[in-house]
Amino acid sequence: MAITLAVDAMGGDHGPRVTVPASLSVLKTHPALNLVLVGQENLIRPLLARLTSEESSRVSILHTDEVVLMDDKVAVALRNKRNSSMRLAINLVHEGKAAACVSAGNTGALMAVSRFVLKTHAGIDRPAIMTALPTVKGHCHMLDLGANVDSEAVHLLQFAQMGSLVASALDGIDRPRVGLLNIGEEEIKGNDLIKEANGLLKDSGLNYIGYVEGDGVFAGEADVVVCDGFVGNIALKTTEGVARMFGAFVKEEINRNLFTKLAGAIAIPIWNGLRQRMDPGRYNGASLVGLTGIVIKSHGSADQKSFANAIRVALKEVEKDIPSLIAGRLQPAAGV
Amino acid sequence: MAITLAVDAMGGDHGPRVTVPASLSVLKTHPALNLVLVGQENLIRPLLARLTSEESSRVSILHTDEVVLMDDKVAVALRNKRNSSMRLAINLVHEGKAAACVSAGNTGALMAVSRFVLKTHAGIDRPAIMTALPTVKGHCHMLDLGANVDSEAVHLLQFAQMGSLVASALDGIDRPRVGLLNIGEEEIKGNDLIKEANGLLKDSGLNYIGYVEGDGVFAGEADVVVCDGFVGNIALKTTEGVARMFGAFVKEEINRNLFTKLAGAIAIPIWNGLRQRMDPGRYNGASLVGLTGIVIKSHGSADQKSFANAIRVALKEVEKDIPSLIAGRLQPAAGV
Repeated sequence: MAITLAVDAMGGDHGPRVTVPASLSVLKTHPALNLVLVGQENLIRPLLARLTSEESSRVSILHTDEVVLMDDKVAVALRNKRNSSMRLAINLVHEGKAAACVSAGNTGALMAVSRFVLKTHAGIDRPAIMTALPTVKGHCHMLDLGANVDSEAVHLLQFAQMGSLVASALDGIDRPRVGLLNIGEEEIKGNDLIKEANGLLKDSGLNYIGYVEGDGVFAGEADVVVCDGFVGNIALKTTEGVARMFGAFVKEEINRNLFTKLAGAIAIPIWNGLRQRMDPGRYNGASLVGLTGIVIKSHGSADQKSFANAIRVALKEVEKDIPSLIAGRLQPAAGV
Repeated sequence: MAITLAVDAMGGDHGPRVTVPASLSVLKTHPALNLVLVGQENLIRPLLARLTSEESSRVSILHTDEVVLMDDKVAVALRNKRNSSMRLAINLVHEGKAAACVSAGNTGALMAVSRFVLKTHAGIDRPAIMTALPTVKGHCHMLDLGANVDSEAVHLLQFAQMGSLVASALDGIDRPRVGLLNIGEEEIKGNDLIKEANGLLKDSGLNYIGYVEGDGVFAGEADVVVCDGFVGNIALKTTEGVARMFGAFVKEEINRNLFTKLAGAIAIPIWNGLRQRMDPGRYNGASLVGLTGIVIKSHGSADQKSFANAIRVALKEVEKDIPSLIAGRLQPAAGV
């Protein structure tokens, strides 16, 4: 079955010269994929020159001159830029003309515009940002990663419900283990929010395994890790920072002397293996769960390979029909 | 000048068989150091057999049978175990018989007992847990790491003031750059707490550089990173988890095939260099700042090398006379 994705070609630090080739690389390997590239036609068109005619028939351009800048305020994106590439891409999802949209644009704007256009499911107060993270055992899913900075316990419960459904669908796990991110250093662990959410999760019917600490996330203790967006974003960026520091240390240790340089050269397959496993690009593509349509957020600094990964995340969510899944399971509960 | 340190010999996952040899290793290299080892004499005494008579003259044992267990509740440690090794070690600091104490025991108990016995400085509402963390440029200091899970803005300001003083003294930096840990994904960044603290910090007279994100911590953007204890502990544990995952990945990549095993063996100097730089033990020894005496918390799972590092942190804080420094600078301000 044909799937149409809308790509905000202008989003991200690099714009069309990353988003368009990345999109086309996925187009070539997915014969059922159709793309609508939204943005400035004069920038996008030249990048399509090398497509076969069959491939060209699966790509269209939706032209607009308006772009949400990386530092635009949410209010500007929402009110003053109603023809932005971001907004038009989301509109395509709303109108049923695209099954999902992918953008590397400003997260705050993407979240606000998506929420305004697509709305959340009944029973879901707030959308959340969810992504996969590597663990020693494979990966886990974590949410919220920054959409909500003052979550209440009931929001954490909703994140858990959505996360469990998504992890189950994407990974084929029957009852994903859901953990609540907490600290272990206090007599009565955690703050009031965590304690209240813990109570709700215990009664949720989910496969709730209790508290998970920051190190437990990467030890693979849970399939889904739930947290407030402030804490989740700090944890996510910390992960990126530590991984980057590790990369810098590896380089410095290799360059220490002639012998380490030689040893480093011999060990190239090891570095490549490590790079692949720690590569943030491999995990690029965060889902804005809780909306009635699929919106995938790419890292703003994504390169072609990373942006292509975000598109594949969108494809996978379309295949699993994540929004219907969430709507189907949560709406009856909301009516109880 | 002679310095006497009190060591809670019973604390931590391993007790005297780690804490005592670790303490003695520092004793041997610091001729001015005197140790009071607090705990069960029958367990400690045999571990002192190999000391020279000069070394023996600098070690004494303060016997007690009572021990705070790693899972003891704070209330139990505080009310029911008034003769615990932890409590007696802290008492020695309070009585001026030791310049500092070091414990690998239960963090919640150590914080509560220290606070009860030693009290905070005038002008400081709550002590904070502070430690050094590696960055690509060297290290930074971060606080609070878990003592306070619902900090108010004024507490974050106090953490910043204390952190700046400590970093200045320990690292010899004139005006340490102080950053406030925040996220970058929101229109108006951060939550209410962060915004309020940001205002206070701007007017604090500190070298406040504004917001630092999770990745900026490890990029070395600030000398002192301030945060609520819940967030700080999540970030700290996340760091540990990612580092451990990286170690596991390195091992797996080396064991992938015969060639990578060989390459891995040749690259041993690189691994050793990396291990040393990422070694959490190298950063073991968190300070409970804000108290009228020096209390250093070691990781519960610390090995000898790590625990010895915590003792060296205590020595350094004694040499710099951190509590007087904090009292001297903050008390006048509190009277304004």
